[in-house]
Amino acid sequence: MEHRDQDQVNAEVRERIEASFARQGLMRHLGARLTQITAGRVHIELNSRPEVTQQHGYIHAGATSAIADSAGGYAALTLFPANTEVLTVEYKVNLLAPAVGDHIEAVGTVLKAGRTLTICRLEVFAFPDGQQRLIAAGQQTLFRVPDPGSDGTQRH
Amino acid sequence: MEHRDQDQVNAEVRERIEASFARQGLMRHLGARLTQITAGRVHIELNSRPEVTQQHGYIHAGATSAIADSAGGYAALTLFPANTEVLTVEYKVNLLAPAVGDHIEAVGTVLKAGRTLTICRLEVFAFPDGQQRLIAAGQQTLFRVPDPGSDGTQRH
Amino acid sequence: MEHRDQDQVNAEVRERIEASFARQGLMRHLGARLTQITAGRVHIELNSRPEVTQQHGYIHAGATSAIADSAGGYAALTLFPANTEVLTVEYKVNLLAPAVGDHIEAVGTVLKAGRTLTICRLEVFAFPDGQQRLIAAGQQTLFRVPDPGSDGTQRH
Amino acid sequence: MEHRDQDQVNAEVRERIEASFARQGLMRHLGARLTQITAGRVHIELNSRPEVTQQHGYIHAGATSAIADSAGGYAALTLFPANTEVLTVEYKVNLLAPAVGDHIEAVGTVLKAGRTLTICRLEVFAFPDGQQRLIAAGQQTLFRVPDPGSDGTQRH
Repeated sequence: MEHRDQDQVNAEVRERIEASFARQGLMRHLGARLTQITAGRVHIELNSRPEVTQQHGYIHAGATSAIADSAGGYAALTLFPANTEVLTVEYKVNLLAPAVGDHIEAVGTVLKAGRTLTICRLEVFAFPDGQQRLIAAGQQTLFRVPDPGSDGTQRH
Repeated sequence: MEHRDQDQVNAEVRERIEASFARQGLMRHLGARLTQITAGRVHIELNSRPEVTQQHGYIHAGATSAIADSAGGYAALTLFPANTEVLTVEYKVNLLAPAVGDHIEAVGTVLKAGRTLTICRLEVFAFPDGQQRLIAAGQQTLFRVPDPGSDGTQRH
Repeated sequence: MEHRDQDQVNAEVRERIEASFARQGLMRHLGARLTQITAGRVHIELNSRPEVTQQHGYIHAGATSAIADSAGGYAALTLFPANTEVLTVEYKVNLLAPAVGDHIEAVGTVLKAGRTLTICRLEVFAFPDGQQRLIAAGQQTLFRVPDPGSDGTQRH
Repeated sequence: MEHRDQDQVNAEVRERIEASFARQGLMRHLGARLTQITAGRVHIELNSRPEVTQQHGYIHAGATSAIADSAGGYAALTLFPANTEVLTVEYKVNLLAPAVGDHIEAVGTVLKAGRTLTICRLEVFAFPDGQQRLIAAGQQTLFRVPDPGSDGTQRH
């Protein structure tokens, strides 16, 4: 997907997504930041700090994947009306290189938005020496629900 | 894999894995606990609390995956000699049901340990009303390295 | 899932699945055989022959995956009423070892059957020297549809 | 990856890949054609015909995946010296839409080529009404070996 000025989302979408992101306890606990919201694409950044590392001091695959998963979910939400939610059905991620540098950036991009299922590409970049480097790549399947989360049962 | 008494690992393996786990800043930050170490299988538990949730109050797929990823990695390490490490090449996880209850438990089990690559099955359970329920299932590929983490370069 | 006598499917289910399998041009073209149908689990076998190989004479990952994908789809169908169909949303497979021996056997097992989505475990075995050996392992997401295939449009 | 004139591979690479493709019994049996070879990217086409279908007459996910898997493997081989081979470690593919039209085209693109592991993006397109449409998207991990296939043992 190419992105141009008209890919900017309107204020309602932006506020809705920012409000949802603010409710994600994990994102707040990790220190993740929602940095870009366009139609079908969302960026989330995470600073490298001891709280998100694995045993060698690199960012843990789980933290890398967590922000990628959220980026994909919100990328899908940019395309849906209010009161719609998405649940992650599954995702797959390859870790290509350790995250060197002071932060990483996950980019979720909608490949196909369907009536029920939406498929996103997930990419995570690091910035060693100021250069952008792909450190993780994946793919995600999302399930669209009108009003999720109310009863704790499986809704797929 | 069936597990019997002889699947218990020796003290050296147990201490090595516990020490590595203690260095995983993310696991500590999430509040994850290493609860069982047998040959080719490791269990990690995570309590449900606001710091690990998504926007509806359920445990975030990223947190679920993070402990599953660590469980698989340590399951592989139980089969390898000291000074060996593993890196996650990739994993895929399906989220089957929301995590209802006060904690979840990830179980990583080695399906095949190879010279270079090890494949694990990943399972995550919740315990609503005291009953064990599979809430996530996945598969993971790990890369075995003699001495990783020393130079920050890609070692695959 | 353990399997016992009561896991046998009734004649209607068996006939329905055999008829559907017979319409899969690819399975016929590969020479695949539907060998076992129980509730939530289906076996498909494939003989090793030049028509299904890659460049070194082993069975091609694509052929291995094709029978695994069909085994999972039919495993799901055993649990659904007539006039229901399933479409593959996605699958992931690890190739663990080359297929040595005169045939391979794929086993699809339902991990969770939901209203819309069903998740299956996929396993493929070879039989070198008469011993069963796991050569591929994967996971599959299926989409349940009441009456698919009639209009050629995306139905997810 | 952008592709320009200098992405053309030399005659040795082209001949090596065409010779390997010609030895893939499955590709020949399916009627697949190697249509484009550039550095880090390979295209394979498959005509829609009864021998490659599932039960509703669409191209079987297994056939779609098989040509995608081969396209990724050969994309990696374009970057490696003679006498190198690759084995598929794993792949994941989402089926986005049924294959409508007279043929499909799989494109494998190297995302990262490492010493041991190479990661490819897999895409498959259909051409309904002359328009290109993404019908499958996936990701693949390959293992590089100097001289595979000689002994039938696991080489990962």
